Amino acid sequence: MAPTSLSSRFQQSVTPNALRSYLAEFISTFLYVFSVVGSTMASQKMMINAAADPSSLVIIAIANAFGLSSAVYIAANISGGHVNPAVTFSMAVGGHISVPTALFYWISQMLASVMACILLRVSTVSQHVPTYTITSEMTGFGASIMEGVMTFALVYTIYAAMDPRRGPPGAIGPLAIGLVAGANVLAAGPFSGGSMNPACAFGSAVVAGRFRNQAVYWVGPLVGATVAGLVYDNVVFPSQELDSSIRGMSEAGVRV
Amino acid sequence: MAPTSLSSRFQQSVTPNALRSYLAEFISTFLYVFSVVGSTMASQKMMINAAADPSSLVIIAIANAFGLSSAVYIAANISGGHVNPAVTFSMAVGGHISVPTALFYWISQMLASVMACILLRVSTVSQHVPTYTITSEMTGFGASIMEGVMTFALVYTIYAAMDPRRGPPGAIGPLAIGLVAGANVLAAGPFSGGSMNPACAFGSAVVAGRFRNQAVYWVGPLVGATVAGLVYDNVVFPSQELDSSIRGMSEAGVRV
Amino acid sequence: MAPTSLSSRFQQSVTPNALRSYLAEFISTFLYVFSVVGSTMASQKMMINAAADPSSLVIIAIANAFGLSSAVYIAANISGGHVNPAVTFSMAVGGHISVPTALFYWISQMLASVMACILLRVSTVSQHVPTYTITSEMTGFGASIMEGVMTFALVYTIYAAMDPRRGPPGAIGPLAIGLVAGANVLAAGPFSGGSMNPACAFGSAVVAGRFRNQAVYWVGPLVGATVAGLVYDNVVFPSQELDSSIRGMSEAGVRV
Amino acid sequence: MAPTSLSSRFQQSVTPNALRSYLAEFISTFLYVFSVVGSTMASQKMMINAAADPSSLVIIAIANAFGLSSAVYIAANISGGHVNPAVTFSMAVGGHISVPTALFYWISQMLASVMACILLRVSTVSQHVPTYTITSEMTGFGASIMEGVMTFALVYTIYAAMDPRRGPPGAIGPLAIGLVAGANVLAAGPFSGGSMNPACAFGSAVVAGRFRNQAVYWVGPLVGATVAGLVYDNVVFPSQELDSSIRGMSEAGVRV
Repeated sequence: MAPTSLSSRFQQSVTPNALRSYLAEFISTFLYVFSVVGSTMASQKMMINAAADPSSLVIIAIANAFGLSSAVYIAANISGGHVNPAVTFSMAVGGHISVPTALFYWISQMLASVMACILLRVSTVSQHVPTYTITSEMTGFGASIMEGVMTFALVYTIYAAMDPRRGPPGAIGPLAIGLVAGANVLAAGPFSGGSMNPACAFGSAVVAGRFRNQAVYWVGPLVGATVAGLVYDNVVFPSQELDSSIRGMSEAGVRV
Repeated sequence: MAPTSLSSRFQQSVTPNALRSYLAEFISTFLYVFSVVGSTMASQKMMINAAADPSSLVIIAIANAFGLSSAVYIAANISGGHVNPAVTFSMAVGGHISVPTALFYWISQMLASVMACILLRVSTVSQHVPTYTITSEMTGFGASIMEGVMTFALVYTIYAAMDPRRGPPGAIGPLAIGLVAGANVLAAGPFSGGSMNPACAFGSAVVAGRFRNQAVYWVGPLVGATVAGLVYDNVVFPSQELDSSIRGMSEAGVRV
Repeated sequence: MAPTSLSSRFQQSVTPNALRSYLAEFISTFLYVFSVVGSTMASQKMMINAAADPSSLVIIAIANAFGLSSAVYIAANISGGHVNPAVTFSMAVGGHISVPTALFYWISQMLASVMACILLRVSTVSQHVPTYTITSEMTGFGASIMEGVMTFALVYTIYAAMDPRRGPPGAIGPLAIGLVAGANVLAAGPFSGGSMNPACAFGSAVVAGRFRNQAVYWVGPLVGATVAGLVYDNVVFPSQELDSSIRGMSEAGVRV
Repeated sequence: MAPTSLSSRFQQSVTPNALRSYLAEFISTFLYVFSVVGSTMASQKMMINAAADPSSLVIIAIANAFGLSSAVYIAANISGGHVNPAVTFSMAVGGHISVPTALFYWISQMLASVMACILLRVSTVSQHVPTYTITSEMTGFGASIMEGVMTFALVYTIYAAMDPRRGPPGAIGPLAIGLVAGANVLAAGPFSGGSMNPACAFGSAVVAGRFRNQAVYWVGPLVGATVAGLVYDNVVFPSQELDSSIRGMSEAGVRV
């Protein structure tokens, strides 16, 4: 009954509802990247050496937590509230959304991130746009593992939040997602940067023209997110009825 | 069936229930402005140059988030929990509340903001009341755009939170609204000030007697809020049944 | 049907359920005062002049918000989650609980506050227990007004959170109560101290042996709380069915 | 009907559902310890003397609150969301889970804590792993009492959050649990460290090879947690129907 040819799948990806999903992902990712990159710029404006200041870490972590909670909240019943290419990748690997839809999600997220960084740069009159960096003692491999583990925690929380068997508790799902992101930034900020989101790393890198260590912010999160999805679906909560109800998520939206 | 003449609309705006809405808006806006302006004054009392201190940004952003969440929460099922002339403007443009009602909302909000600032000034024995300012490198146009984009995010979240099709997830609506405000302040605080609320900017300007750049905090938010409302109602979530249920919001209050 | 003589009212106040309410108030107030006074002591241990440090204000405000949210949450369906003599006073004036019950609530709250401060003093080997103070420029009258206005906001939020007509949104009630307390502390911390709770001011004063300005932390909150209760019950939300359902609150607990 | 021999109880502890519970405890404890120990390491990387810096206390307290809220949230309907050997101990004493199951919970939690600390140490290239310490003025006995009282508050909140008689308010249970942890850290951080969790103290001690005062972080929490469980079950909320519904918790998970 479900269409299986690539062409029909593509057609499913350009219906009005699908287009609305892409717009919702665009708006949410824009809002999230604006908070995260903007708060880093705000810290740098106030402190010369913001990377070594504990208050700046608080600013960036809270901006992550608050920004992601609300970004997921507003998109939850439209696009599912991915706001993150790693989440979309994990959903595509797990079969929850089709590959063409995932590609459009990625494009929306990347575009939103780049535009948020451009807006920040233009409206602040060419203030320096910060990119994620790794502390000098760490290797790229160590940073990838750290980012991967943190993205595992984030995406595992997202799968738990969208699980329809949770009932009313699901209500605070978007909040729990934001809180885990904030906690991770507090732990990893001065080490790997605490991105967990390739779109955010990509947008700031494009606008700053600085792609050093970019791979770290793609490999770690994509692997971590995929493992989280597979573990949740197949090991922790592998029931039959789950499968069908989650499969319908891209239409009905995540249960928040 | 619905009265269309201006006179009958005005009569609808002075029923006991409508008067209660204005009182609720007054109380909520008073509480919000007290938190935001008070926390800025608290920062300035502790630090000579609070505008350049990251801890002060944390203080003001958290006061915004906590204050707005609770202000929206307590007014939500009485007046809809606007707490912001830009939100009221957007609702009037979208036809969710009548123009006379919107005017009374504006008056309540402005009055509450001015009185909160007067209370702060008097009880702290003429401590300086701070106004929103733009960092010296930025233009008023850039600041307007920044304030507009942030107000778009705020009002879009408010529309999502009041959407009756959300079901139980709506429970954390007032919280999501506060969090997006806090995230925006963290990003834009040292640049445009992060007001997103003309009442708050107006009240502090009246009491401080300093109206420089006041237009920035009106044009940006009003445009951003209106665009957010139109996008949400017509593009992202344009169903028929929504229209009728949201139209009844000024009576039944926002779904929180 | 309801007993009206003082003696029978007193008997109602010593049933097993009533005793459980007092224990719940004791535990919640202990937890709250431990957080608030403890966090102030923690700030002072780290900074000589904590009163002039923005980070200390963040510490104390977050401890207030987190501590009060959880204190109200755990007591909500047992004692109603007052955690504050001003709230109990307002409930007694509004007729929601009987006067003998209110007296036992007060005793539990005072005792809990004193014991929390003793525990902090003893376990930290006679570290100085801080009391609420007013900044030197302010008068006691100005501070009373500030405390009264903040307690109005707090108690108004408590009445809104316990209102049974709210439906599912009530779920985040305890959180909204904590957030408004945190926002107020951020605004008033360096001015009047931001107590809003006579028990907290009393306990620390007893253990520190310093009762200066104690009246400020009783008059302001008691008046503010009473006005908030009367405004909410009679002006903003004066329906018939409310009255009866709230009247039963001391038995059934606040709706959270 | 319920099996009572040790052997059959053990068999109950190795069913697929039980194994999933252990995995869920492992993942949640890993996430929590990563946040708490990681945020302490992040503070130390930025500040030489992080223990005496108020911003560092904010970082660690927020990491505790955010990390524990989300860790409890994701495990709540699988393992009950203990994330803490003291909680598991209290549940075993109260008869809510069997002793063999509790042992497997402990092993999962300890293993997760050690592995999180190893990951942090390896990925940050042998950065010093911090252990909980007591300020020099305090005795081990005073610190044990402080940790015990704080764990009482934490575990009492957990019992309240999992109580099925709470109805919809239960929705914010995981959040309330995280907030009480954060409030306690703000109060006790510079004194006893604010652990409330033997697994967290154990893992960092193993990896750092420093077991000084380890007993403080076991005796206090275990006693405090047990008292909290007994008080909640037998004094505050001792109804018949509760008993049976909570007894089934290890199968059905905590009500969140």
